[in-house]
Amino acid sequence: MDLNRYFGEFTSRDWQTSDVATVRIAVIGLGEFARERALPAIRDAQFCEATVLVSGSPQKAADLSSTLAIDRVIDYEAYHAGEAAEAYDAVYIATPPAFHLEYAETAAQLGKDILCEKPLAATFKGAERMVDVSTDVVLMTAYRLRTEPAIRRMREAIRDGVIGKPVQIHSGFSTQILEYTDPESWRLDPDIAGGGALMDLGVYPLNTSRFLLDADPVAVSAETTSSGPPFDLVDEHAAVQLTFPEGETASCTASFNAHPDSRLHVLGTDGQLLLRFPFGGDVSQEIIIERGETHAHYTGPPVDEVCEEFDYFAHCIHTEIECECDGEEGRTDLRIIEAAYTAAETSTQVSL
Amino acid sequence: MDLNRYFGEFTSRDWQTSDVATVRIAVIGLGEFARERALPAIRDAQFCEATVLVSGSPQKAADLSSTLAIDRVIDYEAYHAGEAAEAYDAVYIATPPAFHLEYAETAAQLGKDILCEKPLAATFKGAERMVDVSTDVVLMTAYRLRTEPAIRRMREAIRDGVIGKPVQIHSGFSTQILEYTDPESWRLDPDIAGGGALMDLGVYPLNTSRFLLDADPVAVSAETTSSGPPFDLVDEHAAVQLTFPEGETASCTASFNAHPDSRLHVLGTDGQLLLRFPFGGDVSQEIIIERGETHAHYTGPPVDEVCEEFDYFAHCIHTEIECECDGEEGRTDLRIIEAAYTAAETSTQVSL
Repeated sequence: MDLNRYFGEFTSRDWQTSDVATVRIAVIGLGEFARERALPAIRDAQFCEATVLVSGSPQKAADLSSTLAIDRVIDYEAYHAGEAAEAYDAVYIATPPAFHLEYAETAAQLGKDILCEKPLAATFKGAERMVDVSTDVVLMTAYRLRTEPAIRRMREAIRDGVIGKPVQIHSGFSTQILEYTDPESWRLDPDIAGGGALMDLGVYPLNTSRFLLDADPVAVSAETTSSGPPFDLVDEHAAVQLTFPEGETASCTASFNAHPDSRLHVLGTDGQLLLRFPFGGDVSQEIIIERGETHAHYTGPPVDEVCEEFDYFAHCIHTEIECECDGEEGRTDLRIIEAAYTAAETSTQVSL
Repeated sequence: MDLNRYFGEFTSRDWQTSDVATVRIAVIGLGEFARERALPAIRDAQFCEATVLVSGSPQKAADLSSTLAIDRVIDYEAYHAGEAAEAYDAVYIATPPAFHLEYAETAAQLGKDILCEKPLAATFKGAERMVDVSTDVVLMTAYRLRTEPAIRRMREAIRDGVIGKPVQIHSGFSTQILEYTDPESWRLDPDIAGGGALMDLGVYPLNTSRFLLDADPVAVSAETTSSGPPFDLVDEHAAVQLTFPEGETASCTASFNAHPDSRLHVLGTDGQLLLRFPFGGDVSQEIIIERGETHAHYTGPPVDEVCEEFDYFAHCIHTEIECECDGEEGRTDLRIIEAAYTAAETSTQVSL
């Protein structure tokens, strides 16, 4: 078995069937990720352009709009009133999770397709409502990992049986959140964020495990801990153990207060796959595939998965091919995360 | 902080205070591990020599005794009758777990110190009994990892705060047991082995996590799965999540039917430690220590940890320094493993 074949066309967009026309995007919420990652990615994307900025902070928006040559800047009230609706085809919602729904409702009423940051909402109920209000438009959950070439190549290898039957996943994602986030940040406010490390970071190992195994977990155990302020209202650290229908397990961890790291290891009956730094974004991917005595190492070129994500969104809109990470995907993750919090609180394994 | 200092004297026996006189050992049970690993290790050890073989299979013992120039070969009945007792100072029990107790009882009655293979017994009750009968002799549980230089150097680094406060451990140990074990083996018989992958392999990540954190877990969740014969009576795969007193978690997995692998990753607030192949024995150890932006890689020379283990045992006997992995250590692990099996059966987190 030639393991290198999975890297031959590493950056291949296996999801792309054709070039599509440009989708004009209104970017709603101009926090750091929107400014530093999403707007540059839209600028570099093949099938997207940002045409409208929606912000409650006009000065921030004005600076950006001149830098990026975006003419239209409107505030949230104007957005809800349908102002500038002729200037965009779709919205990218990058506000904190608790506020996603209100912007999605307006977008759906205006007939605009929606790319919404993860987690889809602060609660499972909120995610259900997101899906309900968006039935007539494309609703995609912004899981950038789903268009990360290394993750897609891993999924292909697993699907092809390269590692046999998957048995156990170990995956973690950790940051030192206080190095880039104020202690007063919404990320540490459960009413706005919906949770802590598990909600914000743990969703990456969780969703990626589901994607790689092409299955949803049937049970979850979890432990969440916090050492005190500023993490007194949310989980500072989380460890989650998922059980999948064929007995596969995924041991996932997340931390707001640990050495920055991310890793992903899928062990199968006949081999294993390892990926360093899977969740940090735009970095070289060191991939190891082993099958029996055969080992293949590959370092992929850094690919801007956010750029890939926006082009994938545009491609879904124009081709009407079903979106792989739609609203239901985001809703399922919220169901699992809420079950994990319940498992941690009640010291029981929760069935899904 | 100079991270390389931990590797400067990589193979250092930090536990050794002096040279000690040779301990003469009776090896009880001549299965593959005893023949292939333990007897060569005793031959190479500084403070041990094998002087008696105890076996139910005289032919196997005869071959070995001539190869290794060991004069005395006795059967189990003779051993229990105290035959050849003048020819050995201590015993090494390498029978299947359910039979450890009977040989330990005789050894203790004869005043012989005991090095007993892991797990200490097939059940927690059996381990309690092992400890009870051995109060007047040294009883050491044969955790070879405890004298593996890479593990000891990791522990020193953690103790010194190199990675800050430990937060999360990921560790796994997997084999394809049918490649080296008969499907009829005692290893797949829960009455003799006490359990499956968790008992035989999972005890390595479990005990090593306890050793590195210098703490015992307060709670355990677990999932065990089997795909059917020959694993129908024991866990083919196991995933265990331990919670330690200060909130640290350890996500440990074990499998009898997966690609052979072992790994250990300790994430802390300020850094992390990784060890490749920690549990496979006598292999080069690739160690990574990271603290902030500082990364140190080191590949240690292969050290026969079984040889180290026997010398450590002899050193404990002669110096009367308390054994770090005594019978209580083995008993504690059986308490945790039994709780893990209960957790898996009852779908609850079990408090310890």
